[in-house]
Amino acid sequence: MSDIKTYIKENEERFLNELFELIRIPSISSSVEHKEDMLKCAKCWQKHLLAAGVDKAEIMPTDGNPVVYGEKIIDENLPVVLVYGHYDVMPVDPVSEWQSQPFEPEVRDGKIYARGADDDKGQSFIHAKAFEFLVKTNSLPCNVKFLLEGEEEISSPSLPEWCKKNKKMLQSDIIILSDTSMINQDTPSITCGLRGLAYLEVEVKSANRDLHSGLYGGAVANPINVLAKMIASLTDPQGCIKIKDFYKDVIKLNERERKDLNKAPFNLTEYKKDLNIEDVFGEEGYTTIERTGIRPTLDVCGIWGGYTGEGAKTVIPSTAYAKISMRLVPNQNHKTIAQLFQDHFKSIAPKYVKVKVKNLHGGQGYVTPIHSSGYRAASKALRDVYGKTPIPVRSGGSISIISAFDEILGIKSIMMGFGLPSDAIHSANENFPVYNFHKGIEAVTLFYKYFAELMK
Amino acid sequence: MSDIKTYIKENEERFLNELFELIRIPSISSSVEHKEDMLKCAKCWQKHLLAAGVDKAEIMPTDGNPVVYGEKIIDENLPVVLVYGHYDVMPVDPVSEWQSQPFEPEVRDGKIYARGADDDKGQSFIHAKAFEFLVKTNSLPCNVKFLLEGEEEISSPSLPEWCKKNKKMLQSDIIILSDTSMINQDTPSITCGLRGLAYLEVEVKSANRDLHSGLYGGAVANPINVLAKMIASLTDPQGCIKIKDFYKDVIKLNERERKDLNKAPFNLTEYKKDLNIEDVFGEEGYTTIERTGIRPTLDVCGIWGGYTGEGAKTVIPSTAYAKISMRLVPNQNHKTIAQLFQDHFKSIAPKYVKVKVKNLHGGQGYVTPIHSSGYRAASKALRDVYGKTPIPVRSGGSISIISAFDEILGIKSIMMGFGLPSDAIHSANENFPVYNFHKGIEAVTLFYKYFAELMK
Repeated sequence: MSDIKTYIKENEERFLNELFELIRIPSISSSVEHKEDMLKCAKCWQKHLLAAGVDKAEIMPTDGNPVVYGEKIIDENLPVVLVYGHYDVMPVDPVSEWQSQPFEPEVRDGKIYARGADDDKGQSFIHAKAFEFLVKTNSLPCNVKFLLEGEEEISSPSLPEWCKKNKKMLQSDIIILSDTSMINQDTPSITCGLRGLAYLEVEVKSANRDLHSGLYGGAVANPINVLAKMIASLTDPQGCIKIKDFYKDVIKLNERERKDLNKAPFNLTEYKKDLNIEDVFGEEGYTTIERTGIRPTLDVCGIWGGYTGEGAKTVIPSTAYAKISMRLVPNQNHKTIAQLFQDHFKSIAPKYVKVKVKNLHGGQGYVTPIHSSGYRAASKALRDVYGKTPIPVRSGGSISIISAFDEILGIKSIMMGFGLPSDAIHSANENFPVYNFHKGIEAVTLFYKYFAELMK
Repeated sequence: MSDIKTYIKENEERFLNELFELIRIPSISSSVEHKEDMLKCAKCWQKHLLAAGVDKAEIMPTDGNPVVYGEKIIDENLPVVLVYGHYDVMPVDPVSEWQSQPFEPEVRDGKIYARGADDDKGQSFIHAKAFEFLVKTNSLPCNVKFLLEGEEEISSPSLPEWCKKNKKMLQSDIIILSDTSMINQDTPSITCGLRGLAYLEVEVKSANRDLHSGLYGGAVANPINVLAKMIASLTDPQGCIKIKDFYKDVIKLNERERKDLNKAPFNLTEYKKDLNIEDVFGEEGYTTIERTGIRPTLDVCGIWGGYTGEGAKTVIPSTAYAKISMRLVPNQNHKTIAQLFQDHFKSIAPKYVKVKVKNLHGGQGYVTPIHSSGYRAASKALRDVYGKTPIPVRSGGSISIISAFDEILGIKSIMMGFGLPSDAIHSANENFPVYNFHKGIEAVTLFYKYFAELMK
């Protein structure tokens, strides 16, 4: 299998062009106006899976955006690997901050710049190309199933139900996906823990109309002032969340576990320099790695109300809004947390405003068993490609479907990510180094080999 | 002069059509994209002043939007009345909340619905039509000067300088304007006090880019969370402002003055019902009339940051913003207050964020002497028209140019407003009852008569 490098070199341009075709479709799942782009993107994936060598590839409806499902069954006695990825992407605003158009991919300094370049079009396309090589060279050592969904960025609302209906078809020994990051270019890692998520929208309403801030100011509650006070009260000065029972189900790691976790290379000076911040901020008594890995958070992801245009308008708005996300750690139930938040937020509303809380979405946290064949195969593959045994890490991000796969299908997932922290996923100027794209294809090819061997 | 009523009746339709012509020009002064509309609106006013009978009407440049100046000098021995108004209007968003197009005036249930219907196109047009009647009937008892500016809604940044340059031309005995409200349809009132204003915009910046809330959440300060805490800390639970020395120059009214102030009819139940609120909110120990009339306030007029679109995006934004206005009472200097705010806001910024504060505009408070000929003439005129002596009130609003007129020109202003609290100025569905428009024309006609008599 040493000629995978040659194969990549020979097909480098074609690989990029194919990936760019996927990227150019603005498949933003959070926005209804991109509904048609979702189907277009699914069809594009179907085409590429068929070209790569699957026996069949179907576009299957769900309650939301369609799923692309493809498979190649070569021998019933061989292990089955289910590749998961998502073809939807995050919104792109503020567009003005992008140095090139978000949906017009371009390679600069060896990096592909575009929305979805990493998350997750670039990373999931690694699997299509590794699979293509193994099929073309008649060296595929496993049966392979592909599952690409179009709702990951909105927390996969339809996929669990679809999985329940297609349980048999999806039967596999392991799920593999690339939708996470490595520690850095020289330090391979495998994500073995994910945070869960509860995401809500709040509305604080005072009067039935916008009011002149001079004629009513001082006598009628201003919903922005009130919302600010309510949000401020949700955390203490150290960022600790002040919602009753919020930390009740959080499992505290022991000293040994915390020590292991902090072995991952981390340079606070570089971290601050990269973000251009004077200082980090987080819960007292925890390192930055712990704060993002094993501790829950509460972040306002968006806030709006009143006059936000140019110049000055003197107004007391009728309503103010905020989108609030809480990252959860394994053992915290996202439904319980959403309910706690809802009850708490309503309980702290002063009587002179009306408060609404809407649960936008949620997902459970997850921990991968690191002694499984899947994890070991991924670890060996990365060691071969990068020359170092990958470090198991707890990621702060959430991929809500991973815990659902475990619950519904009873299959564990291996998060073999090739992204870098500098890839700016979810931000302007998202990018993905071509180097990682190629190394990923090499590593995934090896993963199949090792997984087949370990499963014998 | 009893035929003013007949004159109004005979010309009712023409008056409305002429006013609608002014209203249809979207002269929003806070937005650069309406720059050309400002000139267009000034020219429209020029046309109407000439048609009403001024000797001359000019459009005069300022550092910002032009001023319309017109005059009719009939006899040097007669008193001079300077009519002030503004042809600019407030922005109209959220447009979706309007029941009819903001710049397409329509009369429903006896009210003109449009942006500027009251503030201040409708109210200032009262003066044009009263003047027209007096000219047409050869009964004008005073010399009249008209001054219409295009920057009142952005706090008249250019007018003071222009007044300094045209001091001689503007020489008058009194300034009269209609840009305020009456207590209600049956209760005439004259505004004899205005609050000042300091309006600033704040920016709180954390990292140099938007961050994935999973990967960075808990470890890097979220500028929205921080801004919420900073805003929350600006006021205590009762709405008292916690900026050092903020209340230092506030003159406390004595018990007698407070008692007089509270004589104005006010029905808390109706007030709450009108706004559809459970309760009012404001400084403890003060009535609603006092809270809006003699006490300063701090209101967030707008806030924005992060993802505010449809659905859920998990992001820690790089920056969050707010527009903050403080209504000031006479003797508080808006420049001093803006500086106090700026210093305070910067001082409470935690080291993990960067804060910018921009002073958007400001204006001084004002008190009208109620024993002057101007006030007495206005009072008599309103009594004749409404059958009740008007109540002198302190308004919570700000008309920054009024104190500048006093300082620069040495002329007092009479705020003879015909708006109603239900006119929704600065809000969606701004309106102005045709009844008040007509009563206003009657009253202003009488004002000239009484003023000329009192000045003899």
